[in-house]
Amino acid sequence: MKQVDYMAVAEQAMKQIKKGVFLTVKVGDDVNTMTIGWATIGFCWHKPIFMVAVRDSRHTFTIIEKAADFTVSIPSENMKDEIMFCGTKSGRDVNKFERCELQTTDAQTVYSPIINVPGLHFECKIIYKSAMNASLLNPDFEKLYPDKDFHTLYFGQITDCYEI
Amino acid sequence: MKQVDYMAVAEQAMKQIKKGVFLTVKVGDDVNTMTIGWATIGFCWHKPIFMVAVRDSRHTFTIIEKAADFTVSIPSENMKDEIMFCGTKSGRDVNKFERCELQTTDAQTVYSPIINVPGLHFECKIIYKSAMNASLLNPDFEKLYPDKDFHTLYFGQITDCYEI
Repeated sequence: MKQVDYMAVAEQAMKQIKKGVFLTVKVGDDVNTMTIGWATIGFCWHKPIFMVAVRDSRHTFTIIEKAADFTVSIPSENMKDEIMFCGTKSGRDVNKFERCELQTTDAQTVYSPIINVPGLHFECKIIYKSAMNASLLNPDFEKLYPDKDFHTLYFGQITDCYEI
Repeated sequence: MKQVDYMAVAEQAMKQIKKGVFLTVKVGDDVNTMTIGWATIGFCWHKPIFMVAVRDSRHTFTIIEKAADFTVSIPSENMKDEIMFCGTKSGRDVNKFERCELQTTDAQTVYSPIINVPGLHFECKIIYKSAMNASLLNPDFEKLYPDKDFHTLYFGQITDCYEI
């Protein structure tokens, strides 16, 4: 494991995130991973921040709403099939970890595990969240929400960032 | 003017932002600039995104609430005094541009001007905003808001990013 500066890897991370990476959350015994393609990274409330967005129709939403934290795992190897599967199937219907042969391993600083793959990993403690208010979204973007399943934005304080 | 990739300069930008940079907003004839030290950068709603946070006690807040866009100017030269002034004085009481001898120049893609200094400039069209809901903030962070003047988070689509 090699500690890395979260902003030094932000460009590389965002390139991968746009193609799909793993957002993993756990509360109690409930754990799920899903593919995300959107995120912002920076510094707010005096802390390093990683923001992710989860639609309220997602199984992950029911978990992250109760969770204290999340992880983002950005594989360095090609995992296109797994990324596609975890972005299109629901953890309500299938066990994504079994079906994709994804192994988790304990995180260093949070309860949610990371996906145990070579790559970049962010561990994040949720410090603020905000359910989207449709009336404040530019109308040009309403087409992203034909089913009105708006995102909730989760702001995680980055508590660890490393490569394995 | 040299166009730059917004994520390629994100690390450099965030280093400067943490020390203070200029957020400039204009609506009608009302224009103001203030110092910000927090931001996140990334990709969301299929667009490059720059998020800034403005407390509702700020003069800039009254302008940005009516504005369609904002700019962020990140000077490459030492402007410590101007950054300090614009972060501690209010545009309600003083004309910051005159007092700090800051010149503005038209932006390329938005109505709000940029501060005409050598450095990195982001032009952003506001596509979503969210007033902070105190009840969803981790209680450890409440001390940042002794006067309950919470931030509104403005999500700007980056419409241009360049160095001058």
